[in-house]
Amino acid sequence: MCQLLGMNANVPTDICFSFEGFCARGGKTDEHTDGWGIAFFEGPGCRLFLDDKPSVDSAIAHLVRHYPIHSTNVIAHIRKATQGPVALENTQPFLREMWGSYWIFAHNGDLKDCPEPDSGFYLPVGTTDSEKAFCVILETLRRRFPDGKPSGPQLAGVLREVSARLAAKGTFNYMLSNSQVLFAHCSTELSYILRRAPFATAHLIDEDLSVDFSKVTTPNDKVAVIATAPLTDNETWIPIPPGEMVAFCDGEPMAY
Amino acid sequence: MCQLLGMNANVPTDICFSFEGFCARGGKTDEHTDGWGIAFFEGPGCRLFLDDKPSVDSAIAHLVRHYPIHSTNVIAHIRKATQGPVALENTQPFLREMWGSYWIFAHNGDLKDCPEPDSGFYLPVGTTDSEKAFCVILETLRRRFPDGKPSGPQLAGVLREVSARLAAKGTFNYMLSNSQVLFAHCSTELSYILRRAPFATAHLIDEDLSVDFSKVTTPNDKVAVIATAPLTDNETWIPIPPGEMVAFCDGEPMAY
Repeated sequence: MCQLLGMNANVPTDICFSFEGFCARGGKTDEHTDGWGIAFFEGPGCRLFLDDKPSVDSAIAHLVRHYPIHSTNVIAHIRKATQGPVALENTQPFLREMWGSYWIFAHNGDLKDCPEPDSGFYLPVGTTDSEKAFCVILETLRRRFPDGKPSGPQLAGVLREVSARLAAKGTFNYMLSNSQVLFAHCSTELSYILRRAPFATAHLIDEDLSVDFSKVTTPNDKVAVIATAPLTDNETWIPIPPGEMVAFCDGEPMAY
Repeated sequence: MCQLLGMNANVPTDICFSFEGFCARGGKTDEHTDGWGIAFFEGPGCRLFLDDKPSVDSAIAHLVRHYPIHSTNVIAHIRKATQGPVALENTQPFLREMWGSYWIFAHNGDLKDCPEPDSGFYLPVGTTDSEKAFCVILETLRRRFPDGKPSGPQLAGVLREVSARLAAKGTFNYMLSNSQVLFAHCSTELSYILRRAPFATAHLIDEDLSVDFSKVTTPNDKVAVIATAPLTDNETWIPIPPGEMVAFCDGEPMAY
């Protein structure tokens, strides 16, 4: 299994604090040592850092922990390999372009007999069930919306359908973003927290580290952090019920 | 205009020495300060580092200069913006997936009235002529080879056709790689050097730095380095004639 971390915010926000705790699970406080990756949207552009080394030993993770990149949508993944060997091409998140936007996807779980993508639009480069599932999701969206970008609610409707179909094959917790919305689908385990004014101090579970968010935010900031397991021990994380998907936009869950 | 750097080798090789000199042109010895990027293939997997800051000031470029990533195909780009503002989505190289492989592209030049990609397969995310040209190249290949991966010579034939069509719109020096072959198309300025046994010492033009390649290679290593302008002052770089494309594979130019 793997672990997921996501952030969706209404203003470009750095994820250094959350990533510090998450990163410790890649070989220090937990066993997810088969590579890691993180994608940052900055406007429509995307930075993707991938490494097939454990995140606690990675020079690239060290850079990401100490170099604040401000983003409105972030998806990160630490890997404990189930399907596909440890290799760069099997390291998540995965990136594709659709309708003139980048799409980023990361999956925690294990799908048995994941359907093959069959439209020829998108094919996996590596050998994971996760990348195959991402290709199936994208080709399903392309087929259902041949004229291009649907609205958020339309997108969410089709994503729920295809997610249910894929989740029938195993465990399918995932995060998906197109730079505007972050979709978080829970199959077994995924929680989130909404941070907004009045901001307080948060303390990590995996490292003895606190941050007083009131000192690094403005009263209008809204930030949602989504993770496989809660990252802080003094905040109330909201579990996403199994089988449900939440769409986050501008730091808030949307009603679609 | 921009500058390009590429490497194609028969064994995973680090590009730290060449990148050191190339990077200096991003604000120190030259004026390409509108962002930079570098893509490393490792097997079928790809690491892509992008930054919209000048390469000489970039924490990410510092990492790449000092953390040897071993790769058989590398493409790097430093940008002097012509079309499209300075922004992450306009930073090269660009990445897309086709036929289950990642394709990386970087362009130096300026295309007036670049044709729009019209198949709907690939669309630009940013606003550069370069990304548009990349989408046109990929959709042309997809249309001409609907059943999937053509041979190297077949690929080269269609690339020459579409490159000539695009080069008619302006300056079109580019590098393109699918993890196996690196295609280098010269419209005005592109040179390469082939390094192989017996290896000698090379000295950079842009930094007072030398490396004795005989100490860091084995006798079977073959490495081609391709750049807009020669990077060393004590080696003979071979200019690619304008209008020609060279395909490099395993560190050698191919006869197709």
